[in-house]
Amino acid sequence: MAGTTATLLISCPDQQGLVAKLSSFIYANGGNIVHADHHTDFSAGLFLTRLEWQLEGFKLPRDLIGPAFGAIATPLNATWQLHFADSVPRLAIWVSRQDHCLFDLLWRQKAQEFSAEIALIISNHEALQSTAEQFGIDYHYLPITPETKATQEVKALQLLQDYRIDLVVLAKYMQILSASFVAQFPRVINIHHSFLPAFAGANPYQRAHERGVKIIGATAHYVTADLDEGPIIEQDVVRVSHRDETTDLIRKGKDLERMVLARAVRLHLQNRVLVYGNRTVVFA
Amino acid sequence: MAGTTATLLISCPDQQGLVAKLSSFIYANGGNIVHADHHTDFSAGLFLTRLEWQLEGFKLPRDLIGPAFGAIATPLNATWQLHFADSVPRLAIWVSRQDHCLFDLLWRQKAQEFSAEIALIISNHEALQSTAEQFGIDYHYLPITPETKATQEVKALQLLQDYRIDLVVLAKYMQILSASFVAQFPRVINIHHSFLPAFAGANPYQRAHERGVKIIGATAHYVTADLDEGPIIEQDVVRVSHRDETTDLIRKGKDLERMVLARAVRLHLQNRVLVYGNRTVVFA
Amino acid sequence: MAGTTATLLISCPDQQGLVAKLSSFIYANGGNIVHADHHTDFSAGLFLTRLEWQLEGFKLPRDLIGPAFGAIATPLNATWQLHFADSVPRLAIWVSRQDHCLFDLLWRQKAQEFSAEIALIISNHEALQSTAEQFGIDYHYLPITPETKATQEVKALQLLQDYRIDLVVLAKYMQILSASFVAQFPRVINIHHSFLPAFAGANPYQRAHERGVKIIGATAHYVTADLDEGPIIEQDVVRVSHRDETTDLIRKGKDLERMVLARAVRLHLQNRVLVYGNRTVVFA
Amino acid sequence: MAGTTATLLISCPDQQGLVAKLSSFIYANGGNIVHADHHTDFSAGLFLTRLEWQLEGFKLPRDLIGPAFGAIATPLNATWQLHFADSVPRLAIWVSRQDHCLFDLLWRQKAQEFSAEIALIISNHEALQSTAEQFGIDYHYLPITPETKATQEVKALQLLQDYRIDLVVLAKYMQILSASFVAQFPRVINIHHSFLPAFAGANPYQRAHERGVKIIGATAHYVTADLDEGPIIEQDVVRVSHRDETTDLIRKGKDLERMVLARAVRLHLQNRVLVYGNRTVVFA
Repeated sequence: MAGTTATLLISCPDQQGLVAKLSSFIYANGGNIVHADHHTDFSAGLFLTRLEWQLEGFKLPRDLIGPAFGAIATPLNATWQLHFADSVPRLAIWVSRQDHCLFDLLWRQKAQEFSAEIALIISNHEALQSTAEQFGIDYHYLPITPETKATQEVKALQLLQDYRIDLVVLAKYMQILSASFVAQFPRVINIHHSFLPAFAGANPYQRAHERGVKIIGATAHYVTADLDEGPIIEQDVVRVSHRDETTDLIRKGKDLERMVLARAVRLHLQNRVLVYGNRTVVFA
Repeated sequence: MAGTTATLLISCPDQQGLVAKLSSFIYANGGNIVHADHHTDFSAGLFLTRLEWQLEGFKLPRDLIGPAFGAIATPLNATWQLHFADSVPRLAIWVSRQDHCLFDLLWRQKAQEFSAEIALIISNHEALQSTAEQFGIDYHYLPITPETKATQEVKALQLLQDYRIDLVVLAKYMQILSASFVAQFPRVINIHHSFLPAFAGANPYQRAHERGVKIIGATAHYVTADLDEGPIIEQDVVRVSHRDETTDLIRKGKDLERMVLARAVRLHLQNRVLVYGNRTVVFA
Repeated sequence: MAGTTATLLISCPDQQGLVAKLSSFIYANGGNIVHADHHTDFSAGLFLTRLEWQLEGFKLPRDLIGPAFGAIATPLNATWQLHFADSVPRLAIWVSRQDHCLFDLLWRQKAQEFSAEIALIISNHEALQSTAEQFGIDYHYLPITPETKATQEVKALQLLQDYRIDLVVLAKYMQILSASFVAQFPRVINIHHSFLPAFAGANPYQRAHERGVKIIGATAHYVTADLDEGPIIEQDVVRVSHRDETTDLIRKGKDLERMVLARAVRLHLQNRVLVYGNRTVVFA
Repeated sequence: MAGTTATLLISCPDQQGLVAKLSSFIYANGGNIVHADHHTDFSAGLFLTRLEWQLEGFKLPRDLIGPAFGAIATPLNATWQLHFADSVPRLAIWVSRQDHCLFDLLWRQKAQEFSAEIALIISNHEALQSTAEQFGIDYHYLPITPETKATQEVKALQLLQDYRIDLVVLAKYMQILSASFVAQFPRVINIHHSFLPAFAGANPYQRAHERGVKIIGATAHYVTADLDEGPIIEQDVVRVSHRDETTDLIRKGKDLERMVLARAVRLHLQNRVLVYGNRTVVFA
């Protein structure tokens, strides 16, 4: 498979002929589809699709694809995104004190598992500054107190703008983003250390241990104004037993968290996740 | 491994020498231990153990083992149960309309996976009467309305007594047992069709679908007066995707439910589950 | 989603415009696509797709869909199958002595998980005759010795023809079908009690125990002339430990086998499996 | 749970009273058992056990525990190991070019998941020298050709001795150790990138892709003179689909490999693995 690709993520009210109309747009312009996946949510009356095609030989120049497709999308009442595989999204990773997810994401970028640049690390602690330096990434320390939270979020938003950040990844950032922040920067993925909706909120491992569950989980989701209620991208679980203390759950959970977060970030970066309502379609 | 075995399930305050004292009781009487597993819950200060030994050659006759062991257990402040592997517990299965767990348990008994006799089926519907007949098992139809619930539970308790039932298995019985019932007959295992504590209560699959989870689960637990809050014996999960409608979750969940329930029942029947507080130790 | 659907399974050499051409055939005739999934195997240079659309309102009568699509498929050098969701495939289940997969398939048919009719049971043993009677299904006893195998296979082929069987399911049939049989009746799904290609051939659980593996598996595959080498449809696994004797592996394996076989049969019956070379695409 | 512990790993011919005799040795000397697990392999006639007790208050000084226990073990014909939890084993990690397992092990040591010191990295390539420097660990480059293999192994053995290495971890070391090396240094854990015994030997992911499996695995095992035939410590698996190219299997496999290897190393370092014949008991 040679050359770069373009991807359309589209959702619109269901009607006849959508697959034909949408794929014909690509074919008519000489594009070769390398991935096409469709989903119809009958109860919502919604058609959702992902189309990826090779740009080599495509007759429309890049800057005209959007406008040309818009002419098709508007009568269909469609919302859509257009992405090019060779554009490299810029990531900001937010952390507190724990380094396992950060380390994992840094290793994956180095190993070229992601097509993205980790441009910035923001933290409410100084603990991981040396790790950032080790990988040569800018680290901004923004401590949070109830009094300073609002002003620090303004600073953070400015940083995201300065660094031209496309996606924020909360890699064990133990603060809650305000509704105002999320409204201004909505592209945020969080890893929650439980199998949501079980143990939403604080101290999930301790509560899992107290409840005596036999399996624990982790959940990667988009952040919304409602804590731990955003659209779920990926979840996974691991068995535990009566021998596992809370510290063991935490240790086992770390492995889960970094796997689940990394998969979610990768799916997002490959433009495989389409959000509608409080749900996701994952075109995997 | 020849002959039958005896099993002690013991819990007592932790102190030095418990493994030695307890195993010496068996050794001193000529018993050969075939399974011994111990667990210390340090935060609870509790020692919990399961000891299984061959009765062949054991010097104490069966009816004296309990009294003899009691003399050791009392100074240790221990609670304990003694079981013989060749005694066949008698089960009552309670169902509503769905037959998948019932069918599965009946097949397993037929296949001799359980050392138990399914002596009785109780239902608040007539739907599964013919299945009961097919397997030659007594079926008692006890319809429940808010008005009749109390009297029907009295009838049910009488049936459990008449049939000398050791364990009740709620195999998709869609009624809530009263606190009074559970107090009088506490040995009840339920299968809940969610990954508890997520989606406790009614309609878990529909709520899981609405929440957009990527994994669903099932939980087998002992029944207590608090709905879906009893000690968990076993859980398992299966992946779902955006393609799965609520009906698909229900279908996939049925496979989970019967596996999880069967494993829990088997563990209980092998005397491998020790309850303390709201938790279980599973000596698997 | 109302009414019945038609499904096309298509494979052809990859070229530009296939999604557009194929979906336009359906759209041009007034069909509403409810599921479309495509896969390109770049190393094989092959495009593979599944298209399912609602027949209600489709302008072509059923008997003309095939010929009309053939006119499109021939210049594309495509091989294809056309299925209607309301046609009910007829199954023959082959068993030996073990009943767990048979029981499971019978229960699923009864529970309407499959859109299929189990029309016939063939066995080289008499053991499961009563189970067949219990479910009211014809049972043919065809004992096999090295001397009689060839003639018994001829009888079996005749039965498959007499009963108009579409799919044979080997549900723990412990005989090997001859190459000649498979050539004459190639639509056969087998469940192998190991995680293929590990432990192909006889006694996989015993060999798994001897090897000391920590996980066992089961594999459902189409049968070819090469034993246990056919295209894999579905696999799954379960953990085992040093405590598990071979008999425990067999018991745990039974649960795996029936789940994996049932999933594979269901996928096949929903026309979601496309074989090419020795591989499958599963449009799940 | 305060203070350090001692652990005995014991295997001996099965006979009556072993649990009592062994635990009485500890009790009689004032030890408090914190973990005791036993296994009887009836077909091998073997009793295998792990006993861990608190050293605080134990009447025997450390250097006398071994001799004292030897007096009990000899008449039982037992083989045994004695370990102290506060002794820190020294590890050598062997790598080739791939860094994912190395990185993971280094992170875990840093995160104090292991009670061990990574004292030495040996490689047949120079690729990971900078990673070693980043973590401040000695790196020895020992390139291997068919002609130099024997002399390089001698050098490696000398290094293991110089650095007083207790355990070698082959973290994607793509060379085969000679039988002579293994005889001289038998404490070696390897990660094989397949679900053994499937795809033993070279290129397992490519072969898995060609076979069209639906699940891939990884296996951590002790190294013996027979390639990929040593006792298995841990295995795990992940689902793949027709969409996964060999490069995807490799990527998914990396996550598996580092998890499985880390779990195996941890189990070994906690003295939870007992090898007998070609099998392991994992007292987890």
